[in-house]
Amino acid sequence: MNRKAIVLVSGGLDSAATLAIALEQNFDCDALSFDYGQRHIAEINAAKRIVESFKIKNHKIFNIDLTQIGESALTDTTIDVPETPAEGIPVTYVPARNTIFLSLALAYAETQHTFDIFIGVNAVDYSGYPDCRPEYIESFARTAKLATRAGVEGANFTIHTPLIKLSKSEIIKKGQQLGVNYSLTVSCYQADEKGHACGVCDSCRIRIRGFNDAGISDPTTYQTS
Amino acid sequence: MNRKAIVLVSGGLDSAATLAIALEQNFDCDALSFDYGQRHIAEINAAKRIVESFKIKNHKIFNIDLTQIGESALTDTTIDVPETPAEGIPVTYVPARNTIFLSLALAYAETQHTFDIFIGVNAVDYSGYPDCRPEYIESFARTAKLATRAGVEGANFTIHTPLIKLSKSEIIKKGQQLGVNYSLTVSCYQADEKGHACGVCDSCRIRIRGFNDAGISDPTTYQTS
Repeated sequence: MNRKAIVLVSGGLDSAATLAIALEQNFDCDALSFDYGQRHIAEINAAKRIVESFKIKNHKIFNIDLTQIGESALTDTTIDVPETPAEGIPVTYVPARNTIFLSLALAYAETQHTFDIFIGVNAVDYSGYPDCRPEYIESFARTAKLATRAGVEGANFTIHTPLIKLSKSEIIKKGQQLGVNYSLTVSCYQADEKGHACGVCDSCRIRIRGFNDAGISDPTTYQTS
Repeated sequence: MNRKAIVLVSGGLDSAATLAIALEQNFDCDALSFDYGQRHIAEINAAKRIVESFKIKNHKIFNIDLTQIGESALTDTTIDVPETPAEGIPVTYVPARNTIFLSLALAYAETQHTFDIFIGVNAVDYSGYPDCRPEYIESFARTAKLATRAGVEGANFTIHTPLIKLSKSEIIKKGQQLGVNYSLTVSCYQADEKGHACGVCDSCRIRIRGFNDAGISDPTTYQTS
């Protein structure tokens, strides 16, 4: 029997590639997504399509309303998504988002007797979010062992970050080799209901450059301006 | 101007004492509670009364439905709350609960530009939960710094645990000195809607012993059996 894993699937291309990699590594994967009050339902719909495309049986969608915290362009519609590059950590940063998501993934994993969690964070072509860096992930994993009954009883939770040191074009190439259908993915921070992308936000810019560098055609549909 | 703090208030006596201690230390306190699908609304009502009794202006009640994860007697009504002591970590353990709560507190604190978080965990007279131990709290604090924009920009989040090495009777005495009205608090894992306690669960047993050891009369109303 293959070892089980929980894979966080957001609807973007990174997590789709991460799911493909976890399957390639012969993990028996459950998918976990968060409906957290993000700007657009397109993200959750994309996550569902990606999970279905890989024939994953269990897809848990956890509802947690982070608009109760706000202070991010992704969870507060009164803050505009930036459409030009800026210095430092952008306003699309959601306070402690990966810690919240990994905590919930940890809780869910513990109930499933699963000790491998995959998350598609990347610290090369990214928006500069602190909770995408290797030192953060390592620290969370240490905390996870101390936090849980399973950890006290001897389990070691492994937080797998197969993309963390890859460039966006390397991720795109790897995902393509493993059968990711990029037309199902949505990266845009302000996609419309159909999943059509704005083409100008940070996430769109990183995606467009990644496909260009990879020499692969991007199937994304962009909003007509 | 006093330094700001976020204090986690559950409705039990430990967090009430913690709030009193934070105020004694001259912190300007906001309260944070979690409506997480726990068995009884009495807990949230108690939290509200405690916060009001200390004239705290800001009381954030964050809704997060942990019945989506379940696997605990506190979030799954099909699992009975044990009424006799047992070996090991009991079924009232909620997977990764303090990591989830501290993650959300961290996110909220970051939006408030507040870097001091108080939590009433205790590793002496407690149910053996792993996420109440000092080594866990220290690890979470390290993770918090790495996880956040504020941390990257130089802030050090301090997780204050003033009760962690106190016995229950010491906590009760300390809280009484600082004006905690224990009649407002609810400790029972299966209190009824009025906040009346069962008297036999782990949490009730620890509370009853604590008041006895402290030589203080417990104002708790117990359910008539």
